[in-house]
Amino acid sequence: MALIVQKYGGTSVGDPDRIKSVAARIVAAAESGQQVCVVVSAMGQTTDQLVDMAAQISPAPYARELDMLLSAGERISMALLSMAIIELGREAISFTGSQAGIVTDTTHGKARIVEVRARRVIEALEAGKIVIVAGFQGVSTALDVTTLGRGGSDTTAVALAAALKADACEIYTDVSGVYTADPRIVPEATKLHAVTYEEMLELSASGAKVLMLRSVEYARNYGVTIHVRSSFTDEKGTWIKKEDERMEQAIISGIAHDTSEAKVTVLGVPDRPGVAARVFRPLADEGVNVDMIVQNASSDGRTDIFFTLPKEDLRRAEPILQKVSSEVGAEGVSTDPDIAKVSLVGAGMKTHPGVAASMFDALADAGINIEIISTSSIRVSCVVRASEVAKAVQVIHDKFELSTAAIRREMHPVTATGEFEALKDAP
Amino acid sequence: MALIVQKYGGTSVGDPDRIKSVAARIVAAAESGQQVCVVVSAMGQTTDQLVDMAAQISPAPYARELDMLLSAGERISMALLSMAIIELGREAISFTGSQAGIVTDTTHGKARIVEVRARRVIEALEAGKIVIVAGFQGVSTALDVTTLGRGGSDTTAVALAAALKADACEIYTDVSGVYTADPRIVPEATKLHAVTYEEMLELSASGAKVLMLRSVEYARNYGVTIHVRSSFTDEKGTWIKKEDERMEQAIISGIAHDTSEAKVTVLGVPDRPGVAARVFRPLADEGVNVDMIVQNASSDGRTDIFFTLPKEDLRRAEPILQKVSSEVGAEGVSTDPDIAKVSLVGAGMKTHPGVAASMFDALADAGINIEIISTSSIRVSCVVRASEVAKAVQVIHDKFELSTAAIRREMHPVTATGEFEALKDAP
Repeated sequence: MALIVQKYGGTSVGDPDRIKSVAARIVAAAESGQQVCVVVSAMGQTTDQLVDMAAQISPAPYARELDMLLSAGERISMALLSMAIIELGREAISFTGSQAGIVTDTTHGKARIVEVRARRVIEALEAGKIVIVAGFQGVSTALDVTTLGRGGSDTTAVALAAALKADACEIYTDVSGVYTADPRIVPEATKLHAVTYEEMLELSASGAKVLMLRSVEYARNYGVTIHVRSSFTDEKGTWIKKEDERMEQAIISGIAHDTSEAKVTVLGVPDRPGVAARVFRPLADEGVNVDMIVQNASSDGRTDIFFTLPKEDLRRAEPILQKVSSEVGAEGVSTDPDIAKVSLVGAGMKTHPGVAASMFDALADAGINIEIISTSSIRVSCVVRASEVAKAVQVIHDKFELSTAAIRREMHPVTATGEFEALKDAP
Repeated sequence: MALIVQKYGGTSVGDPDRIKSVAARIVAAAESGQQVCVVVSAMGQTTDQLVDMAAQISPAPYARELDMLLSAGERISMALLSMAIIELGREAISFTGSQAGIVTDTTHGKARIVEVRARRVIEALEAGKIVIVAGFQGVSTALDVTTLGRGGSDTTAVALAAALKADACEIYTDVSGVYTADPRIVPEATKLHAVTYEEMLELSASGAKVLMLRSVEYARNYGVTIHVRSSFTDEKGTWIKKEDERMEQAIISGIAHDTSEAKVTVLGVPDRPGVAARVFRPLADEGVNVDMIVQNASSDGRTDIFFTLPKEDLRRAEPILQKVSSEVGAEGVSTDPDIAKVSLVGAGMKTHPGVAASMFDALADAGINIEIISTSSIRVSCVVRASEVAKAVQVIHDKFELSTAAIRREMHPVTATGEFEALKDAP
């Protein structure tokens, strides 16, 4: 018998009526002869409301207690969903993260799953029950309730799919899949049929919100195929899976953008070995995630170092940077929160060297200045002014004809060669 | 070092500001050198809201899932309270019923505590932490989350006080103690200094809402002294404890009333052995709690049986009663929801035979008809019309001069003899 893991996000279970329609969808899957294990997020804005209450109590709530608080949200949604399924005449049982055997480390607020002891889940599935598991939460090796961080329910679903050796892991959400760009910015953006783990990792790391980075990492590490789709329609969504020869060979998958980072410049740094380490080690020690580091060519024995970091870490980073700057004898530090990052991602990029140049052309033609560039083998990212990010996404989407290309790929998924006329213009 | 268990009800932690003031009270108790273990209910109307949501999903929510749902309420309040204490500079840690070792049977919705394995609570107290425990919930021997029924947080507090051998168990609530009658009906009702377990059991069983029956039973069984008091003032409340020679010997403690029951009459029942059993066994098998059974003197070989039962069980009981009535050859069954029960409770009643008669006098003088009478050694209960219950409580309170008596008892707690002039008039 096939076993399927389905995950429903907060919007999908936002009120009792939506919970009932999700229950109907789950029962239909079970009636079709599959074993169904469901991972569910907290209803709608529940988590935000709980965070707000905590903020009224304490400006910096104690992490263990905050996790205990937030874990209440999924208890509510999972119990209601289980009741709704039972009401439709199927047996169902809900499990907390702890009861489902989601064992994590002790890092409250962003715990990592270290083991899945799914005995109770397996027994319930084998007894013919539909199993509902609380997403986003687990129990630590110290027996405390932990949460996995924003988007953690996706990780719960993928981890359970791996532990249960599920035939599919369906992530139901309020968008119908992964798009070539954010459809709110590019109305003609089209849904992708499939992307590789590596592409999805780059898209998530570059600001695409459809799946959190960690769930994709987990899926890649355990070879779990994910199907991201809408909980409001029956339409197929986007598959996230291992690259194989039958898969479409699209050069570009999509464009992600991110306005959550700020730019930092350390000016006139003496250009000698070990300086970069002295700048970045204290930030790493404080848990500040630095991205997109660029160092200018040296002139007169001095150089400028540019990088980006999350805006929310800026206040914490500034005193550290001032101290480091004077220690290494730099000329000063400046920060700029009004930037955005635009990233072009595609597995085929590795063998098509002109992609970056075409992207720069598109931005240049639109009069958009590029402040920092950073690349990986399947991604090109540019920092631009925050005010120009929508325009940047649009012109890059146009340049690579992603709307047409994506449609063509869905119609002829195996022959994608020669689709990108735009690339021919690249140097 | 003294160890104190405090319990705060839902009103006391109804919003973040109230949680902060409860936290301050708890920290003050800890600063005075006591170990403090706190049991907390869900905030304000949380449990009712969760029940409402469940009702939107299912007319009869599955009991295991309803317990899972409802247990979310205390998770929220306990985590917020713990945060608030930490914010005041004391170490605190919250535990779910399961984490605190509240082990129950598997009767979802009204589970009974079978064992308290308080290892984690004791370790945390010994480490100098203030411990916050979720009231109302436990974990069953089948490892499922259970709830203890309405008022279950009181039972959690008493059970923990017994397991921890606490020096005191303080139940903080929105009233300042146990009163001679409901002050909303009798404005001159006065607060009792102390009542025995037996009196409190009768008061709770007769409709007094200040403490649930089961928590008082538990306290009596384990010899836990309870102090019921207000969370909004520093005033002393009412002690509930074992009767001893130093205790006041008040004849009457107070008057309770209950409008939650309905009266059932089975008319013209053939008067032969085994008939009562045939009427009440099927009700007991359905879990209907029957109260105040009265059987008339037989005439012509037929008798009438009267009893009361909870209004909420009436719909369930009616078809059973119709069936039983025809099986035993009775003349019919009638039900009447418009009744109320007024009960007079007092440990001294045992040795003062005139109490019941004085109570009947008071009702007769006020023109209130008594429909059923039932007595125990320390209680007299009368069923009257629901519309007359407030008047009944008032005239009985007046008859026994409970306002004066209670004041006098508080001033002279050991000499209460001769207080009840009213009793002299009794036959």
